[in-house]
Amino acid sequence: MKETAPEAAITTPTRRPTVPALDEKIGERIPVLDHGFVSLVDYMGDDQAIVQAARVSYGRGTKRAREDRGLIRYLLRHHHTTPFEMCEIKVHVKLPIFVARQMIRTRTANVNEYSGRYSILDREFYVPDASVLASQSTSNRQGRGDTVSPERAREVLEILKRDAEQAYDHYEGMLGGASATQTTGEQRGEESEGIARELARINLPVSFYTQWYWKIDLHNLLRFIALRADAHAQYEIRVYAEALAALTKLWVPDAYEAFVDFQLEAASLSRMELDALKRLLKGETPDLAALGMSAREQAEFKRRFDLA
Amino acid sequence: MKETAPEAAITTPTRRPTVPALDEKIGERIPVLDHGFVSLVDYMGDDQAIVQAARVSYGRGTKRAREDRGLIRYLLRHHHTTPFEMCEIKVHVKLPIFVARQMIRTRTANVNEYSGRYSILDREFYVPDASVLASQSTSNRQGRGDTVSPERAREVLEILKRDAEQAYDHYEGMLGGASATQTTGEQRGEESEGIARELARINLPVSFYTQWYWKIDLHNLLRFIALRADAHAQYEIRVYAEALAALTKLWVPDAYEAFVDFQLEAASLSRMELDALKRLLKGETPDLAALGMSAREQAEFKRRFDLA
Amino acid sequence: MKETAPEAAITTPTRRPTVPALDEKIGERIPVLDHGFVSLVDYMGDDQAIVQAARVSYGRGTKRAREDRGLIRYLLRHHHTTPFEMCEIKVHVKLPIFVARQMIRTRTANVNEYSGRYSILDREFYVPDASVLASQSTSNRQGRGDTVSPERAREVLEILKRDAEQAYDHYEGMLGGASATQTTGEQRGEESEGIARELARINLPVSFYTQWYWKIDLHNLLRFIALRADAHAQYEIRVYAEALAALTKLWVPDAYEAFVDFQLEAASLSRMELDALKRLLKGETPDLAALGMSAREQAEFKRRFDLA
Amino acid sequence: MKETAPEAAITTPTRRPTVPALDEKIGERIPVLDHGFVSLVDYMGDDQAIVQAARVSYGRGTKRAREDRGLIRYLLRHHHTTPFEMCEIKVHVKLPIFVARQMIRTRTANVNEYSGRYSILDREFYVPDASVLASQSTSNRQGRGDTVSPERAREVLEILKRDAEQAYDHYEGMLGGASATQTTGEQRGEESEGIARELARINLPVSFYTQWYWKIDLHNLLRFIALRADAHAQYEIRVYAEALAALTKLWVPDAYEAFVDFQLEAASLSRMELDALKRLLKGETPDLAALGMSAREQAEFKRRFDLA
Repeated sequence: MKETAPEAAITTPTRRPTVPALDEKIGERIPVLDHGFVSLVDYMGDDQAIVQAARVSYGRGTKRAREDRGLIRYLLRHHHTTPFEMCEIKVHVKLPIFVARQMIRTRTANVNEYSGRYSILDREFYVPDASVLASQSTSNRQGRGDTVSPERAREVLEILKRDAEQAYDHYEGMLGGASATQTTGEQRGEESEGIARELARINLPVSFYTQWYWKIDLHNLLRFIALRADAHAQYEIRVYAEALAALTKLWVPDAYEAFVDFQLEAASLSRMELDALKRLLKGETPDLAALGMSAREQAEFKRRFDLA
Repeated sequence: MKETAPEAAITTPTRRPTVPALDEKIGERIPVLDHGFVSLVDYMGDDQAIVQAARVSYGRGTKRAREDRGLIRYLLRHHHTTPFEMCEIKVHVKLPIFVARQMIRTRTANVNEYSGRYSILDREFYVPDASVLASQSTSNRQGRGDTVSPERAREVLEILKRDAEQAYDHYEGMLGGASATQTTGEQRGEESEGIARELARINLPVSFYTQWYWKIDLHNLLRFIALRADAHAQYEIRVYAEALAALTKLWVPDAYEAFVDFQLEAASLSRMELDALKRLLKGETPDLAALGMSAREQAEFKRRFDLA
Repeated sequence: MKETAPEAAITTPTRRPTVPALDEKIGERIPVLDHGFVSLVDYMGDDQAIVQAARVSYGRGTKRAREDRGLIRYLLRHHHTTPFEMCEIKVHVKLPIFVARQMIRTRTANVNEYSGRYSILDREFYVPDASVLASQSTSNRQGRGDTVSPERAREVLEILKRDAEQAYDHYEGMLGGASATQTTGEQRGEESEGIARELARINLPVSFYTQWYWKIDLHNLLRFIALRADAHAQYEIRVYAEALAALTKLWVPDAYEAFVDFQLEAASLSRMELDALKRLLKGETPDLAALGMSAREQAEFKRRFDLA
Repeated sequence: MKETAPEAAITTPTRRPTVPALDEKIGERIPVLDHGFVSLVDYMGDDQAIVQAARVSYGRGTKRAREDRGLIRYLLRHHHTTPFEMCEIKVHVKLPIFVARQMIRTRTANVNEYSGRYSILDREFYVPDASVLASQSTSNRQGRGDTVSPERAREVLEILKRDAEQAYDHYEGMLGGASATQTTGEQRGEESEGIARELARINLPVSFYTQWYWKIDLHNLLRFIALRADAHAQYEIRVYAEALAALTKLWVPDAYEAFVDFQLEAASLSRMELDALKRLLKGETPDLAALGMSAREQAEFKRRFDLA
């Protein structure tokens, strides 16, 4: 799975909207995890393209009344999402299979993935750093708790490495002579009988790396980042979301700032929470249970607003 | 509905793939119908981007075995559609509402439309040229038959114009003072009481022009062209599909050529038609009805292959 | 455009999940506007189907820890949206074209619309009730302000009716003999030369009624309702959203209640609003502008929490 | 990963369209591969629902002109796909991860998958039957060739089993005390330090089984079947496509028959192939290369029509 050469650094003139700060990142590999990366391939549009699309919808009046940054903030705040669909980005990503399995759930992306039926996978698998090797969380059914002891970490990492190496050795062995001949299509009769690539690969664990081209519009990219850069997301996908967030910030600085203010660091308050807040601001001490909040909601509400 | 100024002709350097022949079309208005147009705003990718995405999926081997054009033809012929999703195009389109109502059915496009709630529509409506004014087809339930007589054409066009003009006069009248103040938001108390734009517009016929930004990936654009450049599509949308086809041909010449050969001028033959053809080629004279073809299918089959 | 007969009231046994309160609404026409309706055709799933899908994802543990209603509320509150996609509903809707043009923007719905190319449209158009005939809002660029005077309302309604009637008279006239023969396909040579249906219809205003079958999953239906039952939506689509909301409440009462609490009557608070609230609750009087709120945001914030 | 109990066999009356032959399959597990299954959970619509939706589009006239079966065949043959979107089906599927990775590419399906972050995976993995264990195809870069020798098969199956068993032993070991406590959330301090489920699982090969609820409309289901029941699809997904095809045939017999005739056993002929056929039927012997066919296309063309 030798990666295709970094996209050529040839520069051509264009009449399309260009974002110099992003443009120079084309072909650069942002390292993620132990062997992964995110690499910008192409993009379409910029902050101004959002404004342009919004103005066809909301008319000339908006042009004078608000400046561009204000308009972008207004759109994002009021969930006028279609103008953000007018920008598009394409990246080349190398990522472990178990991360790819989460990322593919963003159905609005276009994807071309490396195929283990056509090609032989490389001996590259993810082994977590000891610093992120944690026990099951006791409070969060899907997440991690405390880091494990250094001895236990050593044991676990040893198992993960050994099993992955052995799985790959057996993968190669099962491919037999075929592995050496993939690009020519010839077969060497003298070697051990190989089995088809599409079968041999089923022995490989989900820690192995795959790669793909991934293309998505800005609106759906922001949704992806909000979902996967969240503290509840698994660490190993969060780092990919963060790499994409860094590119997005370069690409559409105004939209990204609005996204942080109105989505990433915003919060949705329930009918009951709004009710409780109004009462608190009037100096009352509302009975949260009576307002309809579950025990868990009450706890989250108090935590959010530093209430006793 | 004064159109936004043609996209600026400023040229900047970029490391993105660029198609000079398409790039120079940016901002140029391709006239369609009496007042409409298609204008290229932006694009992402080129023929090479299809190849690049395909090779991550199908591996290095493909690189040597076939050249790029051959690979693109292979992909299109075998319905490997995802590499074609890696290219994206954005156009500004002005079109009658009844055409927009058909075009919006392509759900895979991103759209920002001019809003009759926010802004006042212009006095611009479609009146067909006499040369395309035809009677209802007697053979095709959805289409047109023969052109009508010049006298009848004159009558019909007169009606269409007069009704549209009158509808617009009344639209303006209903807007009252509001119409003059849309950009400032002020109200002139002394004028006739205006009603809201979102209500006044319901008086306008579907021949009136609207406009939008429309963005789509190449795979879905080709599907759109196949569907709407077809002889069964209404003439008024076909001309938009043709304008888009012309841009596509400049953009991705190899993919477009393959599309013509394997889709646009190809045909899907049913199980029964394939059976009949095999028999015909062996010198037999198959009983088409006995093979399971309906009367209509038999007629179409004979027409397609110039059979008696 | 005679509507197809109400779906037959035949009852059959099924092993599928059934919601009796919704089932008995099948085929019943809920009137909307002057000639429109929403009519339930079919549905799949119920509250329990949401729980069933969630449990395959979140495991057996959830079964014991929380009861079904609690799980549904948890899912909706934390934007775990996929279990809500497991329910589907199909309705037959009759609606003015200008409302259809808004509703079609929900791209996740499946739609089969009445075609003015195949069939002749009926003489049915929307005329607003005087009680909803309002001037342009001065504060809201897209909405309505005060109701107009009874005299002006009479005038406006008169124009709308007269223009629509006249447009339809001319539509019929342009169809000529063809109009009488649509179901048989015959042609009466003696009558005035007709033009094709697909052309004649362009004379009709967007107030005319169309109809369609509309199918959507519960997650996307709730998004539709949130968007279109909102106070900023145009009145004429709001009433359709409300009819759908009433059906949804019968269908999945637990999910609908959660939707009201965590979405419909909830609010998204920005980073700056959250900051301001924390300070207010500590007894401080924060400088909203210094926290980064625009003048409009400050006004909305104060209004939301009844602050001076 | 104990599967949820088969859906209850309770029968209730409904006014919805019901297909008795399909209804009785609800909850029945159709076995696929060594541990997998497809199990019908719910469905919406039937052949008649396709006709119903088509008639709102194509008008009353179609009612008399053709009977239902003919209309369905006409729609499918002419790619009028939207009426087929009016039917929906939901299944519970258990399948190996590497098959799930292919199946998820059908982006139009709704999916809720078992989560290895929330729950512990079972000791269940796919081991191919010796009869499907084949070498890499020499003619088809993605497929299988001849079956391997019995000795080699034994060796390979032994490796696959042993590695999977070992990977699972280590998975359990890494989970430590946590594995026994997943449903209660308690922790047993005395046992070996466990690591989080989301990390331990990365050791498992893609041959392990996962499961999900999968919901899709009929149009997209037929596309899935056409793609995945094809001879070029990997055997292990083909058997899932075939199980779904069997259910579809029970569900919408007319639509399924039309699908076989016009899609599954139909063929798309290129512009060049159509040209060649016309010449052949006239008794000419066309030069295929001169018509523009590549060597591969010429070979396929001759094979398809049994030409020398």
